[in-house]
Amino acid sequence: MALIVQKYGGSSVADAEGIKRVAKRVIDTRRAGHDVVVAVSAMGDTTDELLELAGEITPIPAPREMDMLLSSGERISMALLAMAIHSMGFDARSFTGPQAGMRTDSRYGAARIVEVTPDRLREALDEGAIVIVAGFQGINDDTQDITTLGRGGSDTTAVALAAALDADVCEIYSDVEGIFTADPRVIPLARKLDRVSSEEMLELAANGAKVLYIRAVEYARRHGVLIHARSTFTSNEGTYVLGEGMADPRGTEGEDMEEPIVAGVTTDLSQAKITVAGVPDVPGKAAEIFKTVAKAGANVDMIVQNAASTGRTDISFTVPKSDAAVVLKALGAEQETLSFEGLVHDDQIGKLSVVGAGMRTHSGVSAILFEALSAAGINIEMISTSEVRISVVLRGDELIDAARKVHTAYGLDGDIEAVVAAGTGR
Amino acid sequence: MALIVQKYGGSSVADAEGIKRVAKRVIDTRRAGHDVVVAVSAMGDTTDELLELAGEITPIPAPREMDMLLSSGERISMALLAMAIHSMGFDARSFTGPQAGMRTDSRYGAARIVEVTPDRLREALDEGAIVIVAGFQGINDDTQDITTLGRGGSDTTAVALAAALDADVCEIYSDVEGIFTADPRVIPLARKLDRVSSEEMLELAANGAKVLYIRAVEYARRHGVLIHARSTFTSNEGTYVLGEGMADPRGTEGEDMEEPIVAGVTTDLSQAKITVAGVPDVPGKAAEIFKTVAKAGANVDMIVQNAASTGRTDISFTVPKSDAAVVLKALGAEQETLSFEGLVHDDQIGKLSVVGAGMRTHSGVSAILFEALSAAGINIEMISTSEVRISVVLRGDELIDAARKVHTAYGLDGDIEAVVAAGTGR
Repeated sequence: MALIVQKYGGSSVADAEGIKRVAKRVIDTRRAGHDVVVAVSAMGDTTDELLELAGEITPIPAPREMDMLLSSGERISMALLAMAIHSMGFDARSFTGPQAGMRTDSRYGAARIVEVTPDRLREALDEGAIVIVAGFQGINDDTQDITTLGRGGSDTTAVALAAALDADVCEIYSDVEGIFTADPRVIPLARKLDRVSSEEMLELAANGAKVLYIRAVEYARRHGVLIHARSTFTSNEGTYVLGEGMADPRGTEGEDMEEPIVAGVTTDLSQAKITVAGVPDVPGKAAEIFKTVAKAGANVDMIVQNAASTGRTDISFTVPKSDAAVVLKALGAEQETLSFEGLVHDDQIGKLSVVGAGMRTHSGVSAILFEALSAAGINIEMISTSEVRISVVLRGDELIDAARKVHTAYGLDGDIEAVVAAGTGR
Repeated sequence: MALIVQKYGGSSVADAEGIKRVAKRVIDTRRAGHDVVVAVSAMGDTTDELLELAGEITPIPAPREMDMLLSSGERISMALLAMAIHSMGFDARSFTGPQAGMRTDSRYGAARIVEVTPDRLREALDEGAIVIVAGFQGINDDTQDITTLGRGGSDTTAVALAAALDADVCEIYSDVEGIFTADPRVIPLARKLDRVSSEEMLELAANGAKVLYIRAVEYARRHGVLIHARSTFTSNEGTYVLGEGMADPRGTEGEDMEEPIVAGVTTDLSQAKITVAGVPDVPGKAAEIFKTVAKAGANVDMIVQNAASTGRTDISFTVPKSDAAVVLKALGAEQETLSFEGLVHDDQIGKLSVVGAGMRTHSGVSAILFEALSAAGINIEMISTSEVRISVVLRGDELIDAARKVHTAYGLDGDIEAVVAAGTGR
């Protein structure tokens, strides 16, 4: 008998039918002889409706009250799920974040988990009950007020519970089958991966894959939690996210020995490129520039500096399109002190990333990428790499074509078209 | 500087506009230099919507989960109210029932308050904040689960907070101006009362007056809380409900000395009359009959027995129309053991009650009632009295006419027609 933590997103519990479907799934797991702890998000649009209500009251709601407001969404869905399970003849008890011992700091709207003390959950499990926990929320350790965890909060709740309860697996349910070699909406021939390393998963998520939140994957990796990303709508196995030294529970050594070089290809159209032109080629300039960018609160992704012999150099970097304006303003204000010649803003770029732990051990991985792109006559504007990732910046309107070619070049294409599915909520 | 507890019902916070209006009222009280604690109900239809959701899941929801579900309604309204007050430049903090120390027993859906430990509220008040508390809910002292207080829960929350915090007054806001000498919808000339004794208020509420819940009035009387029932939509003073030895805060001795004999006239069409005919006139029969009625779970109101010389007697009593069927069934099943001759069911009755503490000291109060009715040619079918109330059962279609005549006979008519208003939520 195993202890299984399951997380269901807002789209899985969007209405009574969805809640009953989830209840059946939970019960099936229980029937299989396992202890089950469920972390659940708010129903479909609940959160948006609450946000809208708050918006009608004031443009800038008090953070503490905002969290009090939003946390009610999960209380509704979890109570309904517990009722559904009850009505099917199984004991189920719902617990709020505070009741579940989800203790956080006091950063309302983006609280970090400080400690998880799931005493009441253990009690309920010992009494044979199915445990339902409100995702996305906790209790501020200092003032005992309700907090919410922000984006990816429910995934993180599930993983944190799995870690605290030493669960055998944390199943993250959504309306997609698992982790794919690419976004099926972009590349219809994308294949579902049986397994992916948490390291690869982090790069995939960081570069556009929507199925899992970086935060939850990071937490799982740090605490040795096995994640199984799968679909609410099928009973197929999904994708296992394996941390350091974790074996695939299906124990397919054969495949493990021949690990695929590349796990996936991601595309990202959300970035803009800013080029600081004619920067004096002297030590410390880059530092000054990015201190200014950081002060503007922008999240820099890629950075490329083209060294030049002219005594001046260009420094290019990418930021989320939404941050570009503030960054340009901040840099413009500092033009004299930074003594650069000009600023170029380009929001028509696209980023393509190839992710694979196999890169470490295999040479020529980047060559395949560059050849595929040149064969397609696609120009590369920026390149940056990590240990397990190669990213290139291209023209945005060439991104999808490029991604398909690259996906093929790495031999990732499947035989049949994947089912296209939408992303899930928090 | 006083400590004032205010309660706002669901209709007062039905939408963003309503919430802002309430926020302004709360702030006005704060500006007047008072500490303010607000108990708030769920927004307009929230509770019904949640009940409907639960209904879509299962016909018989688990009580614990039902309370978890319903309690989310107040969390939404209280957070929004706190935001509204914040946005107007005042510090406000919302607290759930558990956070407010509203400790109850574990009767889910109808929990009784066991103890109120408002330490966090005192703290917030000391720090100069306006305190918002979720009405209608508490925490089960045994299992630390969320409970709801049932009908009149928010009124009771407010009164209990006023008692625990030793507040100077508990203002119950609704969309009616206060307590009237009769329901203005029935008797347009009904007058608003400046004050009413808690004893009278209990009789009025028990006999059809909708403005305050018996439970809250009873709690206020036991704990010496001064209630001020007033309207959210005007700044007029409403009606003070005075407990034992409480003086009207407006200190109008003049009027106090000449206390009106009759406080009000109530009408009630919700009862049905059941007559158990031909009951052997021997000791213990009534006991058996009402034991049977009680077992059926019915709430008996009036009881009249017409002693007869025939060795048999008729026992008539009234119950809520909704209970009549089960009572008839229960009695029918026991006809042999109870050895009565027959059952008569009449759901076309109306009950008229005259309430006034003055009855104790003044004679002839009932005479006025009977004369008024006979002058109107209205027949009386049942009579029952308490220390401060006389109730009569009449034909239902004659009730309103009767009530108007009686209202006039006791000199209760005002000069102008009262504003007709709807009842409020929980």
